[in-house]
Amino acid sequence: GLPAGPVNPSSRSVPVLRLSSDGAAIETALSRQQLAAELTCPLRDLRMADPTFPGQFPSVLARRGSIIFSVGEVKAVILSNEVLLFPTKPDVLSIVPAVQEKIRLGIRAVPFEQTVMECCLKHVCKDLLESARNVEPRLRTVLDSFKTSKNSLIKSLHRLLPLKNELDELKETLVTVCKCMNEVLMNDEDMALMYLTDNECKSTARDLHQHQEIEMLFENYLLQVELLASDVIELQNEVRNTEEIVEIELDVLRNNILRFELLLSISGFTVALGALVTGVFGMNLLSGWEEKPQTFWQVTGGIYGCIMLSIAGTVVLCRRLSLL
Amino acid sequence: GLPAGPVNPSSRSVPVLRLSSDGAAIETALSRQQLAAELTCPLRDLRMADPTFPGQFPSVLARRGSIIFSVGEVKAVILSNEVLLFPTKPDVLSIVPAVQEKIRLGIRAVPFEQTVMECCLKHVCKDLLESARNVEPRLRTVLDSFKTSKNSLIKSLHRLLPLKNELDELKETLVTVCKCMNEVLMNDEDMALMYLTDNECKSTARDLHQHQEIEMLFENYLLQVELLASDVIELQNEVRNTEEIVEIELDVLRNNILRFELLLSISGFTVALGALVTGVFGMNLLSGWEEKPQTFWQVTGGIYGCIMLSIAGTVVLCRRLSLL
Amino acid sequence: GLPAGPVNPSSRSVPVLRLSSDGAAIETALSRQQLAAELTCPLRDLRMADPTFPGQFPSVLARRGSIIFSVGEVKAVILSNEVLLFPTKPDVLSIVPAVQEKIRLGIRAVPFEQTVMECCLKHVCKDLLESARNVEPRLRTVLDSFKTSKNSLIKSLHRLLPLKNELDELKETLVTVCKCMNEVLMNDEDMALMYLTDNECKSTARDLHQHQEIEMLFENYLLQVELLASDVIELQNEVRNTEEIVEIELDVLRNNILRFELLLSISGFTVALGALVTGVFGMNLLSGWEEKPQTFWQVTGGIYGCIMLSIAGTVVLCRRLSLL
Amino acid sequence: GLPAGPVNPSSRSVPVLRLSSDGAAIETALSRQQLAAELTCPLRDLRMADPTFPGQFPSVLARRGSIIFSVGEVKAVILSNEVLLFPTKPDVLSIVPAVQEKIRLGIRAVPFEQTVMECCLKHVCKDLLESARNVEPRLRTVLDSFKTSKNSLIKSLHRLLPLKNELDELKETLVTVCKCMNEVLMNDEDMALMYLTDNECKSTARDLHQHQEIEMLFENYLLQVELLASDVIELQNEVRNTEEIVEIELDVLRNNILRFELLLSISGFTVALGALVTGVFGMNLLSGWEEKPQTFWQVTGGIYGCIMLSIAGTVVLCRRLSLL
Amino acid sequence: GLPAGPVNPSSRSVPVLRLSSDGAAIETALSRQQLAAELTCPLRDLRMADPTFPGQFPSVLARRGSIIFSVGEVKAVILSNEVLLFPTKPDVLSIVPAVQEKIRLGIRAVPFEQTVMECCLKHVCKDLLESARNVEPRLRTVLDSFKTSKNSLIKSLHRLLPLKNELDELKETLVTVCKCMNEVLMNDEDMALMYLTDNECKSTARDLHQHQEIEMLFENYLLQVELLASDVIELQNEVRNTEEIVEIELDVLRNNILRFELLLSISGFTVALGALVTGVFGMNLLSGWEEKPQTFWQVTGGIYGCIMLSIAGTVVLCRRLSLL
Repeated sequence: GLPAGPVNPSSRSVPVLRLSSDGAAIETALSRQQLAAELTCPLRDLRMADPTFPGQFPSVLARRGSIIFSVGEVKAVILSNEVLLFPTKPDVLSIVPAVQEKIRLGIRAVPFEQTVMECCLKHVCKDLLESARNVEPRLRTVLDSFKTSKNSLIKSLHRLLPLKNELDELKETLVTVCKCMNEVLMNDEDMALMYLTDNECKSTARDLHQHQEIEMLFENYLLQVELLASDVIELQNEVRNTEEIVEIELDVLRNNILRFELLLSISGFTVALGALVTGVFGMNLLSGWEEKPQTFWQVTGGIYGCIMLSIAGTVVLCRRLSLL
Repeated sequence: GLPAGPVNPSSRSVPVLRLSSDGAAIETALSRQQLAAELTCPLRDLRMADPTFPGQFPSVLARRGSIIFSVGEVKAVILSNEVLLFPTKPDVLSIVPAVQEKIRLGIRAVPFEQTVMECCLKHVCKDLLESARNVEPRLRTVLDSFKTSKNSLIKSLHRLLPLKNELDELKETLVTVCKCMNEVLMNDEDMALMYLTDNECKSTARDLHQHQEIEMLFENYLLQVELLASDVIELQNEVRNTEEIVEIELDVLRNNILRFELLLSISGFTVALGALVTGVFGMNLLSGWEEKPQTFWQVTGGIYGCIMLSIAGTVVLCRRLSLL
Repeated sequence: GLPAGPVNPSSRSVPVLRLSSDGAAIETALSRQQLAAELTCPLRDLRMADPTFPGQFPSVLARRGSIIFSVGEVKAVILSNEVLLFPTKPDVLSIVPAVQEKIRLGIRAVPFEQTVMECCLKHVCKDLLESARNVEPRLRTVLDSFKTSKNSLIKSLHRLLPLKNELDELKETLVTVCKCMNEVLMNDEDMALMYLTDNECKSTARDLHQHQEIEMLFENYLLQVELLASDVIELQNEVRNTEEIVEIELDVLRNNILRFELLLSISGFTVALGALVTGVFGMNLLSGWEEKPQTFWQVTGGIYGCIMLSIAGTVVLCRRLSLL
Repeated sequence: GLPAGPVNPSSRSVPVLRLSSDGAAIETALSRQQLAAELTCPLRDLRMADPTFPGQFPSVLARRGSIIFSVGEVKAVILSNEVLLFPTKPDVLSIVPAVQEKIRLGIRAVPFEQTVMECCLKHVCKDLLESARNVEPRLRTVLDSFKTSKNSLIKSLHRLLPLKNELDELKETLVTVCKCMNEVLMNDEDMALMYLTDNECKSTARDLHQHQEIEMLFENYLLQVELLASDVIELQNEVRNTEEIVEIELDVLRNNILRFELLLSISGFTVALGALVTGVFGMNLLSGWEEKPQTFWQVTGGIYGCIMLSIAGTVVLCRRLSLL
Repeated sequence: GLPAGPVNPSSRSVPVLRLSSDGAAIETALSRQQLAAELTCPLRDLRMADPTFPGQFPSVLARRGSIIFSVGEVKAVILSNEVLLFPTKPDVLSIVPAVQEKIRLGIRAVPFEQTVMECCLKHVCKDLLESARNVEPRLRTVLDSFKTSKNSLIKSLHRLLPLKNELDELKETLVTVCKCMNEVLMNDEDMALMYLTDNECKSTARDLHQHQEIEMLFENYLLQVELLASDVIELQNEVRNTEEIVEIELDVLRNNILRFELLLSISGFTVALGALVTGVFGMNLLSGWEEKPQTFWQVTGGIYGCIMLSIAGTVVLCRRLSLL
């Protein structure tokens, strides 16, 4: 392999949980240099599994004699007789009793590395499923609030934004996990390398096409992650559909408000015209009609009649222009 | 294969319908452990066909001596002389008489497992077609309602949202079924494994490229599902197009309303100016014109003239600014 | 092949036009059972070419001794010495004289099945080209109407919707035809099977890579269909671009209208303030100023002055808030 | 090859520029029949390079003894000792001196057909680069006008529409040219066929993998076209981003206008209420307060006080409803 | 290889930093002709690494005896015993001490060309990471400003536009770098060619599949770039989500403003009606009620009562029409 200089000068040690194939687990701490020397594998590869490096892409690397498993929170270096688990989060350690239980029950026909990988993959799936189950009910509540009450729309929108971001992140995670599993499945060479126990025993190179157990293992968990991804995409579609419909609804509502407002404006305008007439007759100027007894009623009647007529006329006009 | 520990501790039995290759059907119940032992196939694979696990991705898995068929509602384990059908829904059982009819008619040149797979695929296609036929007329009604009446727009939108979600789900289902069939078609090894009857008789391994019947079978139903998917995409395009046009229509309508409102505002403003003049002359203050007999008519005429002139002027200005 | 039970119990016969390799054409009618027996090919495959089945995906299937050609309206079963053409539409029959002309002219070095396939492909391309030529001028008219007159926008939108749907359908058709041709081109085995005349004469199996003529034939027509598809996509882009620009234009226009309306509102408000002052002095209450001769002019001047000042002030304020 | 009937009955001749490998160029005219006979290549293939056929998809076809090169404006049939160039546009002829210069300088180790192809590819790249350089500055001007002045927005939009269409067309062209080059690069057989000079000399078939010079040639120009395509996509992204931001800006501006309008409406309403009070006291009816000397000031003060109070109250209310 | 004429007539020399495998570095200047002669590699290939050509697509070309590395700012020609580094930017030179340090430390088991490539790839990753880290905090500030204050929305939008363009560019760069690395990883032949030291020593051709070290090297840095690309896509999604939510929020706010405005319009209209009545009684015409003492209070009460009633009625109507 490639020897590597001190990529990261600090040779600080990281906590590691070593679980041997007989079920014994020891908590210890190792520096990366020690690890690389022990595994005869370049430091660069170890960085994949190093929990102190933030933001790692999911990857399952098959190296001669070891599998570097780093998907989501689960970061481990799997050997034929031991697994080095990096405790990135407390609940990752739940893999240990699962493996121990399998070892206890197991007829030992399954090689140790496959037992460990299955437990790791199961833990990853469980984690992803929990994330999805965490988002979904909150999202449903918000989407339902869009349909029912129109008053708290702004509040619902404020709650929707972080949920949309979470969904995008979750989908991205699921897609990269799928991609990483697919890469394993498409690489015959890597899958053959993953039979650590077998490869150790036999001297001759393994045939590249003898990897059915590993293939079935990854295929199976890939299907589960794809199902989850498809559920998340469905949720995103629902969000998108709801948003689209809400936008058109708001537009329709606005047009309805504006139409009613137009109706008021028309009426208001004719009333203003009438008020102008009354204003004219209210001027302290001589019209010569001041003393005629019937004029008051004629003018008043005329004003009200004209208002009614012009409102009717304008409404008819607007109907014809399809504004109302 | 991989032995598996008690993934799901409860060893509750699920109802199964066993249909043997001579047409005899027995309803029974099996636990998953029994099934796995009988089929010598890992529990993990059986989970695919287990109706008690919710939300399964469509998959057709070829294993040594058995085919695990799980697409949509149809979940079955096909052997060379028997099929185990899980009755997820009552209408899935309609596969049984279809197979029995084929057996009765058949010249028995077609192996049992192919007969069963064809009936299963046909049932899946029928199911998907029904879902599509169920959505389409309702969607057409809603889309037509957009074109005709503008009054019930909000109601139409409320009915459109669940339909859009249904369409997205249906498309997702169709796409995953296509993907699952394509995966079978691209895997020579799996298709060769599916000749259960042949593989049982012959001792030598089957040539990987002798799978024309299975290939034609899947190819054919794949074409049907793809056609359906393309129809659903066309429906989605129509929805999208209608929404886009409706949105622009609402915008145009709004601008027309606002223009008319602007016309009213202009007229209203000039009327208000006239009213101000009448108000001025209505004040109980001495203007010195109180007793001049012609002033009333001059002022009134002036007011009306100015109103007409300023309305005309402002409309001309707005035309030049292309607001009207 | 797979024997098939009565998929569709009705054994009604469909009209067929048989054109033999010497140019003789006979109109006849065949039931599907007869056809399947004659061609020794499963009913399932025939369904592809059956015009009574609605909505078929384009497909060119190579079977032993026959080619099942079903693209768009052209549905035919091609044999080494005969072609069975299903007259789905009258203009499909124009393939017959084209083939006859080719036979008359031909130096007969080209096998019959290739002559027929070329005529079929040419007809398909002509059909697709006509559909595209039918949509384009109507679409250009509508798009131009968007640019010129703003009055008939709603009408243009009503005419745009069906055109957009037509474009989407046309594109989908073109894409599926391309996909179908590509599938032929990527399948060496199928192309080798399509040399019906050659395969009949020779006893030994054809080499899988000897298919240059068929490859060039499909390659050529594929280029034409792809060109058409790219033209349709360009049209769709133009529609999209026009819509986007029209939407922003409507928004800009609306803001301009609202700004002018704001100007009117400001002026209207100050006039209303003035009217309030005149109203105050019009009250039949004693202000004590009733008899002072200059007050009328002072108050009137004050009102007009304040109106002018406050209009100017508010406009300056709005400019600073960048509302005007 | 496939003999072809008279696809296009008119056997009109097209102008051709023949440039032989010793640098001599002759302008002549050939009918397509003559050309096909000379090249022993089907008419169908020649159509690709025929400038009288409008709208051709870019394609580089390798035939036995000739290369049919048709990308953009450059349409040519390349032989081992001659190239037939179709002068679709005057500037295409600039390829001739470029080839002649190369021949003059050349150590003749490079076969003639590669010299010609390099000149053709270079011309195509130059053409595409010029198209891109033509659009970019005009687009930048329009995009900048969006950022600076808000008054000429409608004009900018009118200028943006044709530019967007041009960009889409350019991108489509670039993508199809890339696709065409990629198809050459992925087809070992075609690249081997393109060694016209070598293939003529040697009797044995060329090894399919000996095509490094042709591969490097196309790889190189492919990189240039991809770079251009990526630049065009970046421009489109900028347009999209600007449009999105402008749309939200217009929305924000509209809300600001409406808020100010709301402020005016509130004030206007309270003034109208005050005017109503003055109107009431202006009625020619007896209130009994006509002669009380202080009432005038009390009512006037009351009106102004109420106006101030209710404006303040409504503004506070709107703030609480977050409307202002 | 292909000899090339003077593509670019000016044979000006470019500054080059030569670093030999023993760690000695010399700054010098070379013309492209000299370089091509020295490397026996076509000028066309050198253009990839030529810093005077603007806008290069990232590419790593394996040639016989040399690797042309041109990704981002890092442009170099790597030989088995020397590297020619083009100092496009000052910080590119930081590769030199990194390589020297590696040489000093190295057990020399790693060939020189791999050491150099690792340093180059590390520098590229560092550069890209810095670009991403540069954009992110500024973007977060802008996105947060959207959530908190609504007043500076226009300013935030002005700051968002260049950031969106930067993100698009960065994503495009990351995608093209990934593509370039993937192309190396998918080309066994190129990776085998990159063992410059090995290939020089051995006379026999290297087996195409012996390239694990190079593969692991590129795989590793590809993962890092992909992770960065996925982070950038996440940022873009956040921007998109925020924009969508802000747009709907603005719509909701606008509707709320319009509703309140509608309420004001309704009230205003009824007040105008009341004012009309007062106007009527304010006319200097005889109604005959002038002297009746109670009329004033009856009319005033009637006006206020009607106003209240009609406001209530219209609000109820609007509620029923779901406008309020």
